Amino acid sequence: MLTVHHLGVSQSERIVWLCEELGIPYDLKVYPRDSETRLAPAAYKALHPTGMAPVITDGDVVLAESGAIIEYILALHGKGRLVVAPGKPGYADYLFWLHFANGTLMPSEMSNWITGSIPGSDQMWLTSIMKGRADQAYGLVEKRLGEATYLAGEEFTVADIMTVFILSTFRAFTGRTIGEFPNMRRYLALIGSRPAYQRAMAKGDPGMALLLD
Amino acid sequence: MLTVHHLGVSQSERIVWLCEELGIPYDLKVYPRDSETRLAPAAYKALHPTGMAPVITDGDVVLAESGAIIEYILALHGKGRLVVAPGKPGYADYLFWLHFANGTLMPSEMSNWITGSIPGSDQMWLTSIMKGRADQAYGLVEKRLGEATYLAGEEFTVADIMTVFILSTFRAFTGRTIGEFPNMRRYLALIGSRPAYQRAMAKGDPGMALLLD
Repeated sequence: MLTVHHLGVSQSERIVWLCEELGIPYDLKVYPRDSETRLAPAAYKALHPTGMAPVITDGDVVLAESGAIIEYILALHGKGRLVVAPGKPGYADYLFWLHFANGTLMPSEMSNWITGSIPGSDQMWLTSIMKGRADQAYGLVEKRLGEATYLAGEEFTVADIMTVFILSTFRAFTGRTIGEFPNMRRYLALIGSRPAYQRAMAKGDPGMALLLD
Repeated sequence: MLTVHHLGVSQSERIVWLCEELGIPYDLKVYPRDSETRLAPAAYKALHPTGMAPVITDGDVVLAESGAIIEYILALHGKGRLVVAPGKPGYADYLFWLHFANGTLMPSEMSNWITGSIPGSDQMWLTSIMKGRADQAYGLVEKRLGEATYLAGEEFTVADIMTVFILSTFRAFTGRTIGEFPNMRRYLALIGSRPAYQRAMAKGDPGMALLLD
């Protein structure tokens, strides 16, 4: 049996959501963050050498890293769902947005948050470079969501599951607002209407306000 | 015909290397960095909306993002090579290291470099957190390379192609040294002995000194 170890308010919401979208059986273990430090509790850090969310266990397998876990679950339980297969229309778009999430969007926004949180950093050349990169990455998502219903095209895929955490839960952390991004707001409202997303968030983070606009 | 657009001294060395490992036909276009700014030239930035390396073109397809391009080329030309298939021993290890490269190792080292390059940053709590994360990520790679010949196990895979850029060319940029990491030095020497790696680097970055120790 697959066990999803979910650290509260973290990237592992993606894995709970994926399991709900696929409708597969899984055990969910929720680990609230330390109420003072907001870091992962010791029990979560002990799960995998990275000490980071997400983590799944499946028999002898202990696996971390969002992209790896999603690929693993899809290979074993996906039956071709939530992906665009090689050679199909939109295959390259699907691959791009799937990998862009943690390959560019997340690290650029993290770097932007880091440099922007340093006192006096608005005078630094590095800050403007990092802000420019993150703004560009956000702008690409907004542009894409003006061309297509979902990131890969007209079908919902795991590219959306990889990306939505960054646009919602992580954004609550960085404080970025999306008032100027109507396509992104349309998209997040659509995501919020998905029963599987609602079930996942209710199970994993029942006390968390969802940031979908 | 697949065209690999290689920005000098960049992540796109991975794609040249992948094509050489697979022995597939491809056109290589090399774009040297601007000699003053060290940034990508305008012709490279114009290839894809991200403006970032790597980029490939294949008929109507224009694709960016290392992970996406590697998955695309493997799906079309891989014939099962350089991967561990689902259900085979080591599949989870393969997936972890494949996604860890750009999902954790690269962004943590980038964040570490950013915070470490800010004057007075050695007094900041954020600096020590970022240094701790990057050191941990590097330490995990070192530990893994003491357990197995390559990252996924005893066979060379694209997990190595994703990771080596970070341990070599990107490290020349950040200045990290690996004198205390004997396993990593053993591994990089082994990588440097691969004819496909040598051909790729000679074609893509003929003037660049390789940092493999």
